[in-house]
Amino acid sequence: MTDVCVLGAGLIGGSLLRVLGPDRAFGWNRSTPGAEAATAAGFHVSTDLAVTLRRAARTDALVVVGVPLPALGAVLDAVAEHAPGAALTDVVSVKGPVLAAVRERGLGARFVGGHPMAGTADSGWAATDPDLFRGATWLVAADDDADPDTWSRVARMAVDCGARVVSSTSADHDAAVARISHLGHVVAEALASAGARGGDLALALAAGSFRDGTRVAGTAPDLVRAICEPNRDALVTVLDECLADLTAARDSLAGEGSLGALVDEGHRARRAYERAQAVRADAAVSVTPGAPGWLADLRAAGAAGREVRPAD
Amino acid sequence: MTDVCVLGAGLIGGSLLRVLGPDRAFGWNRSTPGAEAATAAGFHVSTDLAVTLRRAARTDALVVVGVPLPALGAVLDAVAEHAPGAALTDVVSVKGPVLAAVRERGLGARFVGGHPMAGTADSGWAATDPDLFRGATWLVAADDDADPDTWSRVARMAVDCGARVVSSTSADHDAAVARISHLGHVVAEALASAGARGGDLALALAAGSFRDGTRVAGTAPDLVRAICEPNRDALVTVLDECLADLTAARDSLAGEGSLGALVDEGHRARRAYERAQAVRADAAVSVTPGAPGWLADLRAAGAAGREVRPAD
Repeated sequence: MTDVCVLGAGLIGGSLLRVLGPDRAFGWNRSTPGAEAATAAGFHVSTDLAVTLRRAARTDALVVVGVPLPALGAVLDAVAEHAPGAALTDVVSVKGPVLAAVRERGLGARFVGGHPMAGTADSGWAATDPDLFRGATWLVAADDDADPDTWSRVARMAVDCGARVVSSTSADHDAAVARISHLGHVVAEALASAGARGGDLALALAAGSFRDGTRVAGTAPDLVRAICEPNRDALVTVLDECLADLTAARDSLAGEGSLGALVDEGHRARRAYERAQAVRADAAVSVTPGAPGWLADLRAAGAAGREVRPAD
Repeated sequence: MTDVCVLGAGLIGGSLLRVLGPDRAFGWNRSTPGAEAATAAGFHVSTDLAVTLRRAARTDALVVVGVPLPALGAVLDAVAEHAPGAALTDVVSVKGPVLAAVRERGLGARFVGGHPMAGTADSGWAATDPDLFRGATWLVAADDDADPDTWSRVARMAVDCGARVVSSTSADHDAAVARISHLGHVVAEALASAGARGGDLALALAAGSFRDGTRVAGTAPDLVRAICEPNRDALVTVLDECLADLTAARDSLAGEGSLGALVDEGHRARRAYERAQAVRADAAVSVTPGAPGWLADLRAAGAAGREVRPAD
């Protein structure tokens, strides 16, 4: 069954094509070299968006939007024109703006947002990896009026990719990823900048902690902006928190020679993260999409960090 | 030849014992369990500091101080009492305060500071690893009036551990490590704290970038403080820079929806770091300790990020 249509064969979309395989997935890519690379690898990836979407509509494929947010509007316009009734999801890193753009175009009835928490500092078809999603968390949105059938299809696709599904509203997702992803991008850029300003001596002395702490600063700047800037409100909130923490530590160090409470809080926080990783193997919460209270059940499981699975 | 006396058998000192081996190195550890663990592994590690130092004086061993800075004064007092003429180095993470403490006790004539840029978030004998220094950079100080013979012994020991020697003044080292190590510790604590405040949902969504960006927040808080706080002036300077960068990005994001110049600068900085790693295999600069201008030659090589080797 050719049931998934991937729009954008970059790192995420291309990896999705590769894990599902050409018998199950087809797609579209804006750039000819990317489409040709995917085609050479045996995939049906066209540069004709209208043709691709009409095929999706005809076969009732799940349409997965895998383009960066700046390209989203044009792709959704084409979906509204050529496949307005298709089941629809996305793999974009921020969920609120995608949901708004989808609803603006009247595509909300069969839309359920998604976000696989996986990636590398590289991009494009050459960076794709069929194992990219193995063991990763895939956020499948539980927004008001979500279509149970689409939710199930998105969740099953994520499970088929080897991911664990966690669910929340789009707003809760965006607030969370500002903390555990977008802030980290901004901080890594500042840390890398501070290191390089120390010149060749500083870079010669840089060891594992600098390598790891600045890794995501290796991501292409346009991609960093496309990931972080659409989450403006949530990111400003957590940047303000971070600035307050760092300022308090700085003032305590300058005044009393002590970094203050931040070191203890940070260590407790890291330990909490490590514990959360360790309990990921806990049994998933089974939820029946469409059953009474299913969205509340999904959100409660997500708030507890628990994996969810669609009941068969 | 039993020529190295290691004071403190923790992560760094214990790993040094293990790479040099019991035929070449002996030592002291404050805590009995640590000394017993080292002894059980076949090393001569005593809990009697006076006896250990008198043995070092008698055999003209190079004394390596491997205790955290808060314990440094008491150890140096014992060196001044029991082995005042010994060749002396250290592996403490900040160099200016160690140099001052050494000079205060009249031990400067045969002292050359050192700092292997290696470590993990773990500590104690159980964390020691004879390969810890392989491929790492080992800063050997080039301060005014440095003893050429001690400099050579420290550099050769570092090379024997598989490390590459880079040299600079203690002050230049401290300014550099504030940028590429200490700032990273503070920032990782803030990033971990921001993530954990997002609760179980945020921790469930955390992926590789959060794991890597917060790794050093797993270091014991007392050790983080012992590493960072003695470098107060340099760390406050770079924290102020970092705060200015983050504030500018925050204001630009809140006002114009753009993270501004920081993303491009951070990406260029990370690329500069990656290039610096790639050229590490360049031929080392050979310097003859004690020859006219040798300290200036060491500093010039260090400012260029170049490895140095003592000429035979």
